[in-house]
Amino acid sequence: MTAPLVITPGEPAGIGPDLLIQLCQQLTLPHVVIANHGLLKERAQQLGLPLRLHTWHSGAQGPTQCGELLVHDIPLAHPATPGTLDRTNAPYVLEGLNRAIDGCLAGTFSGLVTGPVHKGIINEAGVAFSGHTEHLQLRCGVERVVMMLATAQLRVALATTHLPLKDVPAALTPTRLRQVIDILLHDLQHTFGIAAPRVLVAGLNPHAGEDGHLGREEIEVITPLLRDIDPSGNTLIGPLPADTLFTPKYLAHADAVLAMYHDQGLPVLKYQGFGEAVNITLGLPIVRTSVDHGTALDLAGSGSADTGSLRCAIAQAESMANSRASLQDT
Amino acid sequence: MTAPLVITPGEPAGIGPDLLIQLCQQLTLPHVVIANHGLLKERAQQLGLPLRLHTWHSGAQGPTQCGELLVHDIPLAHPATPGTLDRTNAPYVLEGLNRAIDGCLAGTFSGLVTGPVHKGIINEAGVAFSGHTEHLQLRCGVERVVMMLATAQLRVALATTHLPLKDVPAALTPTRLRQVIDILLHDLQHTFGIAAPRVLVAGLNPHAGEDGHLGREEIEVITPLLRDIDPSGNTLIGPLPADTLFTPKYLAHADAVLAMYHDQGLPVLKYQGFGEAVNITLGLPIVRTSVDHGTALDLAGSGSADTGSLRCAIAQAESMANSRASLQDT
Repeated sequence: MTAPLVITPGEPAGIGPDLLIQLCQQLTLPHVVIANHGLLKERAQQLGLPLRLHTWHSGAQGPTQCGELLVHDIPLAHPATPGTLDRTNAPYVLEGLNRAIDGCLAGTFSGLVTGPVHKGIINEAGVAFSGHTEHLQLRCGVERVVMMLATAQLRVALATTHLPLKDVPAALTPTRLRQVIDILLHDLQHTFGIAAPRVLVAGLNPHAGEDGHLGREEIEVITPLLRDIDPSGNTLIGPLPADTLFTPKYLAHADAVLAMYHDQGLPVLKYQGFGEAVNITLGLPIVRTSVDHGTALDLAGSGSADTGSLRCAIAQAESMANSRASLQDT
Repeated sequence: MTAPLVITPGEPAGIGPDLLIQLCQQLTLPHVVIANHGLLKERAQQLGLPLRLHTWHSGAQGPTQCGELLVHDIPLAHPATPGTLDRTNAPYVLEGLNRAIDGCLAGTFSGLVTGPVHKGIINEAGVAFSGHTEHLQLRCGVERVVMMLATAQLRVALATTHLPLKDVPAALTPTRLRQVIDILLHDLQHTFGIAAPRVLVAGLNPHAGEDGHLGREEIEVITPLLRDIDPSGNTLIGPLPADTLFTPKYLAHADAVLAMYHDQGLPVLKYQGFGEAVNITLGLPIVRTSVDHGTALDLAGSGSADTGSLRCAIAQAESMANSRASLQDT
């Protein structure tokens, strides 16, 4: 049997706790939540929802019915007020995250699902923190990770992520692109269980450079690298113009899209799977998925936050963890 | 009564003639086609489709039934072979285009619908030609035009178009952006008949720069300009992150999207309206729409070209021409 997932609800003043409490009313969550007991009980009261908590210990079984959560209790500096950030609670967020990562690395958990954190308040608390992904990368000791967003119909991985647009072309070195493609192909095979993955690779420039008339990166960097890794062109299809790539002719025969930068790939993904997009970190030794939205401080405690992305993030992590386990068994 | 549209099928060896012959089997086309009589008759034979041609003269009425076209006949240097480019026919393409533009400027036609041309073969024929849009701009004597792609559900205008990605940030000057926005708002009002248009404006950088952490163009260029033109923020909404802009929350209350560059806006548009996207040139004194695909030389003469984009381009031009006419009447 696969170990349970571990879920970190993230910022205590945000909608993370709400989403878990709301979601466990709709479905049984046989996973471990690392959070503060009191926070969850209080938020449930604010939401007017029933909640029964079980205390996690090694080997503990998860809930078998709705309205229950299995919680690894960690202390909170001050009670959290929905919508009001409190820097003294920043260590709580990081402590939960670190225990979750360590538990995944140790095999206690089969994967990590993260709720939204607030980078600003963690930094204000005096801790250098530029995001979940970078933190995971550092703690897991890997040189490169790849951000992928996925819905039930579409997977989009990014060759570059959170960079000013003007810095994208220079960041797209053959070394980076090779690392990204290696990680993407490896994880499609070993975490998604796709034996012979097919990836649509976008060009960097409009019309994929139009034979050099609209930019030369396709000719000088992307095409040589794709053909070096995959001479046949059966695995890495492209470079293709980004505006024709996302059409049935191409998508019907592909397992993932590799976009060269953030706004080339994610607008389509979020348009296609609005509210159901999951953020996945490839290249880690552990399974990790995340909601694709922020802390939504204005909605915390209101009961009107949408659980769609968390539900999908959990389902995606379950599927990836099961796939990894079955591939290891064979 | 509004004057007829004029349609130029474009490259004679491409699918342009096919699309018109195929489309007129399905619906009555009360417009004027500028093309070679013999070419159309020959292509219809190759396609195995019936075609009756009427010769256009000033005041001529368009066909009232399917299978007919009203044609302004112009000479072709050599008979066209489907799929085989012939540089001696390049003057034919330009002659048709110029007569069509002049007819629109003179009011003989209420708008222009263009089929696909092949830039390369026109250049090989010794004529400098970088595309329909630039040619129209020059012949109509306007300093700036704006490219918009539209489907029945979505309109996306571009602040920059066919540039290498690395040149986009520098091209996005306050002057250019102001010209683009002025043209977009003017045409939404006066050609689309939207009295108080609302435009979603994307940022240049991921997350619209995230308060300067991911680029400063939003702070230094885009936001000051938007608020200068529209202090209230009711007309020009943004700058918004491109990956959340294309979601129902925003799109439900907008008439158009302004993307900062080609691959930020067009992948979503073409994903959403696959095969039904229309290319529209804003900022001209005349109405002009176009198919959003190329000459597809491999499909010419086969009968398997998809008429969707031409059908939509004609319908869009009809609607724009009617809207202009009714606004002039009031």
